[in-house]
Amino acid sequence: MSYYFSKKLNVTFEKAMSRVIEELRLEGFGILTEIDVTETLKRKLNVDFPNYTILGACNPPFAYRALQAEPKIGLMLPCNVIIEELDDGEIEVSAVDPLSSMQAIQNKELQAIAEEIQLKLKKVIEQL
Amino acid sequence: MSYYFSKKLNVTFEKAMSRVIEELRLEGFGILTEIDVTETLKRKLNVDFPNYTILGACNPPFAYRALQAEPKIGLMLPCNVIIEELDDGEIEVSAVDPLSSMQAIQNKELQAIAEEIQLKLKKVIEQL
Repeated sequence: MSYYFSKKLNVTFEKAMSRVIEELRLEGFGILTEIDVTETLKRKLNVDFPNYTILGACNPPFAYRALQAEPKIGLMLPCNVIIEELDDGEIEVSAVDPLSSMQAIQNKELQAIAEEIQLKLKKVIEQL
Repeated sequence: MSYYFSKKLNVTFEKAMSRVIEELRLEGFGILTEIDVTETLKRKLNVDFPNYTILGACNPPFAYRALQAEPKIGLMLPCNVIIEELDDGEIEVSAVDPLSSMQAIQNKELQAIAEEIQLKLKKVIEQL
């Protein structure tokens, strides 16, 4: 079982980023965090790493329901989406499958919420 | 199996936050992201939620090794630590068990790295 949904795009890194942010918005997700992995690794370790950004996406009504169903679920939030430049220069966008990252948590109510979020994230990737 | 390590502290929310940031620092973790869940839920949904903050902690050398072993691991990074105010006013600090959140990923090299990070996060919580 894969733990993510992904698609390769034939556009620039910046264009892929703006497109995925727009598709996330259409499914109700805002971006709460943004980590420039490339810049962070350069600054902390002085190593060169291809373009790689982690976006933390959050759909507030769903996050609220999840927090009420499972108070510690903040440990698995927000849902990450990554944009990376591959060796061949192609750009790949991937979204985590929340059912995978939350599979260690036994909670039927949470699972139902995660299934709804899974469909939304899958749609975001398909629409790219 | 629990998916986190936690400890209740008899200090203020702000003090708990500064203590866990310091203990994380001693184990090599910097804070890459900080989400004020209470403020976010108030702003987006106009609901009242007890004090709850999600810190995204990252140990750069380990993150770099993890990214080399499993390129899509950014979907599970950084490691979250939450600080929450409970109903009785006590403060609880919890760190994700990376072996739980990554259990959907079949990768022995990654698992060895996650085990080292697990020990570090467990120690952070124990030292509080």
